[in-house]
Amino acid sequence: MRVMGVDPGLTRCGLSVVESGRGRSVVALDVDVVRTPSDAALPMRLLAISDAVEHWLDTHRPDVIAIERVFSQLNVTTVMGTAQAGGVIALAAARRGLDVYFHTPTEVKAAVTGNGTADKAQVTAMVTKILALQAKPTPADAADALALAICHCWRAPMLARLAQAEALAARQRQAYNAKLKAQLKAAR
Amino acid sequence: MRVMGVDPGLTRCGLSVVESGRGRSVVALDVDVVRTPSDAALPMRLLAISDAVEHWLDTHRPDVIAIERVFSQLNVTTVMGTAQAGGVIALAAARRGLDVYFHTPTEVKAAVTGNGTADKAQVTAMVTKILALQAKPTPADAADALALAICHCWRAPMLARLAQAEALAARQRQAYNAKLKAQLKAAR
Repeated sequence: MRVMGVDPGLTRCGLSVVESGRGRSVVALDVDVVRTPSDAALPMRLLAISDAVEHWLDTHRPDVIAIERVFSQLNVTTVMGTAQAGGVIALAAARRGLDVYFHTPTEVKAAVTGNGTADKAQVTAMVTKILALQAKPTPADAADALALAICHCWRAPMLARLAQAEALAARQRQAYNAKLKAQLKAAR
Repeated sequence: MRVMGVDPGLTRCGLSVVESGRGRSVVALDVDVVRTPSDAALPMRLLAISDAVEHWLDTHRPDVIAIERVFSQLNVTTVMGTAQAGGVIALAAARRGLDVYFHTPTEVKAAVTGNGTADKAQVTAMVTKILALQAKPTPADAADALALAICHCWRAPMLARLAQAEALAARQRQAYNAKLKAQLKAAR
């Protein structure tokens, strides 16, 4: 499975592509950070990010996109920019019929370091080790995009099993309700 | 000038097109609310909104898009959705080379009612009166989209004068600095 990881942002947007193999084996195929000038108009910044992501989708043809889900940050303006960048990336994926998954920073940190409150240095160190990179990926947004893709590779089987279990439970609930209804009807 | 007004949102996204004439005359050409189901996946909801906006841009060919700028709301999830919807709309405009302007709710309310803290009922009543509509536009998102377009029609000349004044001031500052530099050089 080929996963594109995205750490969304207006000023710096981390992009990565990771291929998962058997078990927990993962290989980094590409990583980069797209930057847009903070003095440019918002629509132009979103266009630059969208164009870069579309180029990556054409070049790497990932099976799925994993985007960092940001719930809240201290700076409201940054949250808005992150949400807007994430929105145009999710749109590009939807236009191509690609599945999009969101993982929270805590899920990503827990997946790659075993600790949901790990700091940036720990995440970068583990990403470097897991992918057997010759140098630490910089800036932090590049490491985050790689961590996100690794997190999705490792969580995907569990998410698939969870979806199966939920679908099964829904079918069983439906069958039970139908049976109950039939019994009530017969009893009247 | 033909202005498309957008009150961005994932569940309900208000769209309007207003044509401005001489002075403060404004005519409503179209208004609608795009809805996306809250149980649909985010990328699909953004795609539905993007497709609707692109269809409006093709149909109405506005000169400019005015989008509501949302700074903060009580509910973080709603802010994120609003920002994401606003982002894909700004992207659609940028792809067509259209200018995008953002107005805050306070600016919109002040423009149409004369009171920046007017409530929804007052905004709807004034929009109905200004555009000489036969019925009140509903839901509130439709009225908001119309108010936003009216606000832009009326603020545009002022914004243009402001931009001119700022450009003039920048040129004068530049000329003064150049003159000062030359004098300093001559004095040495």
